[in-house]
Amino acid sequence: FSKYSLDIINTSHLPAETKDGFRVTIKANIEMIDEIPSVITYGAEGVGLLRTEFLYLSKKGLPKEEDLYSVYREMVERLNPYPVTIRTLDIGGDKFVSSVPLCEEMNPALGLRAIRLCLREPELFKTQLRAILRASAHGEVKILFPLISGKMEIIEAREILEEAKQELKQKNHPFDENIQVGIMIEVPTAVMMADVLAKEVDFFSIGTNDLIQYSLAIDRVNERVAHLYEPLHPAILRMLQKTVDAAHAHGIEVAVCGEMAGEPMYVPVLLGMGVDEFSMNAIVVPRIKKMIRGISQEKCKELFNELLEESTAIAIRRRLLKFLSDYY
Amino acid sequence: FSKYSLDIINTSHLPAETKDGFRVTIKANIEMIDEIPSVITYGAEGVGLLRTEFLYLSKKGLPKEEDLYSVYREMVERLNPYPVTIRTLDIGGDKFVSSVPLCEEMNPALGLRAIRLCLREPELFKTQLRAILRASAHGEVKILFPLISGKMEIIEAREILEEAKQELKQKNHPFDENIQVGIMIEVPTAVMMADVLAKEVDFFSIGTNDLIQYSLAIDRVNERVAHLYEPLHPAILRMLQKTVDAAHAHGIEVAVCGEMAGEPMYVPVLLGMGVDEFSMNAIVVPRIKKMIRGISQEKCKELFNELLEESTAIAIRRRLLKFLSDYY
Ligand SMILES: [Mg+2]
Ligand SMILES: [Mg+2]
Repeated sequence: FSKYSLDIINTSHLPAETKDGFRVTIKANIEMIDEIPSVITYGAEGVGLLRTEFLYLSKKGLPKEEDLYSVYREMVERLNPYPVTIRTLDIGGDKFVSSVPLCEEMNPALGLRAIRLCLREPELFKTQLRAILRASAHGEVKILFPLISGKMEIIEAREILEEAKQELKQKNHPFDENIQVGIMIEVPTAVMMADVLAKEVDFFSIGTNDLIQYSLAIDRVNERVAHLYEPLHPAILRMLQKTVDAAHAHGIEVAVCGEMAGEPMYVPVLLGMGVDEFSMNAIVVPRIKKMIRGISQEKCKELFNELLEESTAIAIRRRLLKFLSDYY
Repeated sequence: FSKYSLDIINTSHLPAETKDGFRVTIKANIEMIDEIPSVITYGAEGVGLLRTEFLYLSKKGLPKEEDLYSVYREMVERLNPYPVTIRTLDIGGDKFVSSVPLCEEMNPALGLRAIRLCLREPELFKTQLRAILRASAHGEVKILFPLISGKMEIIEAREILEEAKQELKQKNHPFDENIQVGIMIEVPTAVMMADVLAKEVDFFSIGTNDLIQYSLAIDRVNERVAHLYEPLHPAILRMLQKTVDAAHAHGIEVAVCGEMAGEPMYVPVLLGMGVDEFSMNAIVVPRIKKMIRGISQEKCKELFNELLEESTAIAIRRRLLKFLSDYY
């Protein structure tokens, strides 16, 4: 074991707090039950993004409410008292499901995906929502809607959620009446409307992967343009800041659950803009915690303001690298 | 001939000026030489968007500089003294070319397209730029770069343009040394950086089709989501306004060359935000001129400010329809 590895292990269960006392929450992105031990081991404080596509990828047809409930319940119970944010079905696009009627699309990333598909198939959606709600009787659960582009989708999704609640009440199934509802910020229009959307939900979770992809009109899995995918594009920094500022102005918290949150070099950037929660693959939690504990937020704020003055990603990257070599 | 048709014909050669004297420029979007008579007939004041993909779609290989030059020259001469804005090659995505090496992409709209392709193939790009420059010796020509996402692409494209100019000088080919250079605003990051980009170019041309598509993450040719494509989404109005305001703050003009510019119902919206130029299919020029001449810009500004207060496309559409029925 190197000294670095030991350090990492020793830090992993300490709070994710900067030198000047800014406390952030570190959570894990997971998909399967067998990832739960790693969430605890690596020191995450719950699950910030539970991907739920897996149970829909079976060829045996759509999962039943009971099947979903038993999996969600087990996860919630095993993670209790830590909270679990369950993202509703995010299929379509690059993820294909045999049971859900998806035909071929020319640009699947711009197609019938995620919340759009769920609003089009309300019974499919409501089945999942009932299962999530029932799991909320066994620990802290939050609901996260993906690919929201504006206020109407939130209203429609909340209506279906309300129906699901009423159905459960009629059957005397317990659930958390005050379950928190958040949205992914990953469509450019959601950033533009962040001030309006912040009034409609309990939290934001920024999906940097899709947000960067749509904002730059770049498919990052396309190797011919992947080099143009750029988290440090000045427009992306402005969009992230706009989102965080709008959330805070309305008293709600912002998580980042895209890959940016799990990449050590971006830690000072996200701290500088005031992100409240980082959610990432469990295995990188210790490294990110160590990064956070090694710096003051004040310094990161100064850095972030400097980065916002730059007009190209190249210049931003140069400044950030200088900062990293100065302080780490 | 109905009275309406006669009215249209009578208005088509009058200036596109609102009742309170706000003068906008109306131009045509064209692709082929045989469309030139219609530009004049319908009363357009030049070409705001000359699509140049056509000559690259031949199976006989890439067009030569002389081939391009002779077509551009004929167009420019026949439209003289009206200006012609020539958009550089915008292929890739949904447009396929046999001569240019394009492989299959999963999401072509987010792939190697337009300026990205041209910056990757500088000789292909420079050949077209030399032909455009040479045409500028025969009338007023402006260059328009598509799919710009940030400042670096403008710098790179301008470098190649500079090389093209030097090469023409060495061969003693005349061209307009002060040729204007503009960019399409159609990628969300370009909107976010509009204040920075406005310092780098002579004009903006908003491509509403792609801008709306990327901003909402909607492929509008995909019939499964086409209903979600929404020019009146509040985020889109904010983005258009942000672009116009940034341009005007830096003393440059803004054209709209997407389909929004040729749709009568959006005329008051675009007038209200202060768009300087509308470019559209020639055939709709008379109708749009009649719409413009029938209203005062002051009223449109009031309308636009009211629309910005709304938080959903439905409410915006309702207000706009009320306005249209009140004033037309
Ligand atoms: Mg996503
Ligand atoms: Mg376009």
